[in-house]
Amino acid sequence: MAKVKKQPRPKAVTPKGFRDYFGAEVAQRKAMLDQISSVYQLYGFDALESSAVETVDWLALRYDLTAPLARVFAQHRNDLPTPYRRFAMGPVWRNEKPGPGRFRQFYQCDADTVGSGSVAADAEICAMLSDVLETVGIPRGDYIVRVNNRKVLNGVLEVMGLADDPRRDDVLRTIDKFDKVGERGVRELLTVGRTDASGAEIDGVGLSEDQAAPVLAFLTAKQDRVEDTFEKLRGAVGDSVIGNQGIDELQQIADLLGAQGYGPDRIEIDPSVVRGLGYYTGPVYEAELTFEIKDEKGRPRQFGSVAGGGRYDDLVKRFTGQEVPATDAKGRMDKATVGPVVVTVMDRDRMADYQAMVGELRGAGIRAEVYLGNPKNFGNQLKYADKRNAPVAVIAGSDEFDQGVVQIKDLVLGAKIAQTATHEEWKEQPAQFEIKRADLVAEIRKILDA
Amino acid sequence: MAKVKKQPRPKAVTPKGFRDYFGAEVAQRKAMLDQISSVYQLYGFDALESSAVETVDWLALRYDLTAPLARVFAQHRNDLPTPYRRFAMGPVWRNEKPGPGRFRQFYQCDADTVGSGSVAADAEICAMLSDVLETVGIPRGDYIVRVNNRKVLNGVLEVMGLADDPRRDDVLRTIDKFDKVGERGVRELLTVGRTDASGAEIDGVGLSEDQAAPVLAFLTAKQDRVEDTFEKLRGAVGDSVIGNQGIDELQQIADLLGAQGYGPDRIEIDPSVVRGLGYYTGPVYEAELTFEIKDEKGRPRQFGSVAGGGRYDDLVKRFTGQEVPATDAKGRMDKATVGPVVVTVMDRDRMADYQAMVGELRGAGIRAEVYLGNPKNFGNQLKYADKRNAPVAVIAGSDEFDQGVVQIKDLVLGAKIAQTATHEEWKEQPAQFEIKRADLVAEIRKILDA
Repeated sequence: MAKVKKQPRPKAVTPKGFRDYFGAEVAQRKAMLDQISSVYQLYGFDALESSAVETVDWLALRYDLTAPLARVFAQHRNDLPTPYRRFAMGPVWRNEKPGPGRFRQFYQCDADTVGSGSVAADAEICAMLSDVLETVGIPRGDYIVRVNNRKVLNGVLEVMGLADDPRRDDVLRTIDKFDKVGERGVRELLTVGRTDASGAEIDGVGLSEDQAAPVLAFLTAKQDRVEDTFEKLRGAVGDSVIGNQGIDELQQIADLLGAQGYGPDRIEIDPSVVRGLGYYTGPVYEAELTFEIKDEKGRPRQFGSVAGGGRYDDLVKRFTGQEVPATDAKGRMDKATVGPVVVTVMDRDRMADYQAMVGELRGAGIRAEVYLGNPKNFGNQLKYADKRNAPVAVIAGSDEFDQGVVQIKDLVLGAKIAQTATHEEWKEQPAQFEIKRADLVAEIRKILDA
Repeated sequence: MAKVKKQPRPKAVTPKGFRDYFGAEVAQRKAMLDQISSVYQLYGFDALESSAVETVDWLALRYDLTAPLARVFAQHRNDLPTPYRRFAMGPVWRNEKPGPGRFRQFYQCDADTVGSGSVAADAEICAMLSDVLETVGIPRGDYIVRVNNRKVLNGVLEVMGLADDPRRDDVLRTIDKFDKVGERGVRELLTVGRTDASGAEIDGVGLSEDQAAPVLAFLTAKQDRVEDTFEKLRGAVGDSVIGNQGIDELQQIADLLGAQGYGPDRIEIDPSVVRGLGYYTGPVYEAELTFEIKDEKGRPRQFGSVAGGGRYDDLVKRFTGQEVPATDAKGRMDKATVGPVVVTVMDRDRMADYQAMVGELRGAGIRAEVYLGNPKNFGNQLKYADKRNAPVAVIAGSDEFDQGVVQIKDLVLGAKIAQTATHEEWKEQPAQFEIKRADLVAEIRKILDA
């Protein structure tokens, strides 16, 4: 008989590109998802939770929430309303090389409108995006939603005589680099080529300066006044029908939003938005946080894009967003989570009495637990309470039970005193004191409210 | 060159064994998970969300939430408190043949205590389970949490002289069938064998009637009074040390729970609980719903087990539960979800005005949306409102705008009138009426509150 080979025990490590979320992290994300979905709901979007697995050639984990939406809509179109507004939140998976801040499992919070040709659907998505950002705690002025339109670019390409030219894709790829190389870089790349930061020679598309001009006019069309922006765009697309239609759409979006009070302090027309221009077929949107953060080396950095989307034929979508919540980065949600009240165990035989204490506390809605490790070493119990972020420890041995009292240790105050108080102050305001057993809930409530 | 074969377009079907959840289903499950986690939190359990993927021989979707817990605890034990109380909720995946009510992706809501040897941890889990069931809407009396202990069974096997006998596993397998074949069936299977319902002969384990007696005494030990149950169990385990230790533990659990007011109307000692006895090493628990439901053919059926768990060495766990919420089955959560107010479009050029209406409604916290499909056919707009479960439709064309009014259609009242009203009643209480544009929010609020 062949020997059964013993498998080595698997190492306890999170798979590469994945991570685990503990306590407060789970609660914080949940709070944010709840806020986002409350806005989505208010706008009439319905929740959809599709299975995590889709059939491609074989079963595969979903890559995004758009392909499942397309599948679900095709499958249930007779039962679903049209237009179908739906939102979905959940993990998606990528079989890509993980890197800093890039995981193989991360959350998306999509909202899509399927089956509406109206640009009012695009305006609605932009307004909703603005509301979502403010609802999760980003004040007006700290973000901007920028809107562009692929159709305007199509008009520009038409004017350049590249609508059906194979160089069209080269131009699209070049535009995509506008964020990185700027106006001058794009001009060089569209014409004779350029030398990049590492000294490498990059071939140009080979257009003349004149041919490249409409693209640059398009990318830099943004002016302080939106009417002036449209003026510039009209110049860039000339008499292209599709181009002028794209500008009309942008104008309608701006008008609809303006009428609802969403001015350029929140949502602006900005032809320099290039992300997604290659993919979407109509309006594209991007939300950016405009405040500075410090990177790990303390250098100021732009936070940048947190959400984006656009129209793909009659599917209007957005907020295929980043996983790291912006609010986390700005530290607005990180108030320390308060742990449970810990009732320590001085006398094993009194377990029922300790349980009765936590029972009363829970009955009053106060998070509480009995120490369930080995109670022999009392120091370990206090260390445990510390690790649990407990605001209060309750201590009672036979003396206390005989006298109908318990000792209360205010751990928050204790930590503060330990840091700052003089010996005198410490004596005046001790962090540990005796209370009547009957006053347990009331006294702890007092400490928690303080 | 080889021709590229065109892939057939994938069929729009949910993968076998998976399902999609729409609107109200997502909201209902979320509400239930929120209720469950509020109880877990109150008991001092901390949330943990591990990655959906674990490293086995290769990356694999998690099968349950226990293996990830074991991995996370091993990986982070220096940073985690001990005992570690954690809860986790999320989908798990099984590569098994799907069947009715059996999916390849379903939710689990685990709560586990790692690193506590105390039976107080087991009592706590049972109390928490009872609280969870009542919190999600199952009244006391409609459920029972039953507790058994593997150590008592070990004592029985010791008394039978089977503690180290290869037939021990046969006996364990036979006990597992107690729910199906009952006392007589187990007796036959332990001794000479039996003929099952299909006429097939099933071999017995080959014990004598005398040898089988302690097993049957154990399984049927439950009496009305818990002291009598313990009396019977003492008889079944004789002088086995492990057996008596198991009974002591059950007694402590019953005492601790009794002291906290969890009497046998909620949690009872019941040696006939066999689920998990083969797997767990100490106390096992099972929660059962005791009311009857009707199956698809209208026949009365027991709802049965909804949650269960037990102690595996120093890991105390429970609520590796069923996916279908009991509350759904009893229909307590199925109040029809109210859709958004739908503002119809009579005049495309007035889109900004329609948007202003939904903006005001949303500002007042009322779910609202503009119809964004093709507005040409007004009947389609009302059909859409119907599909959306809209409580109210708002209608305004140029006449209304000129006069500063809007038409309000109370769709709930309309549906009621259509079903029952006489023509006279219909005229007296029309479901559609005119209001001032300025009163839009107030009038709709009135209808929604009615």
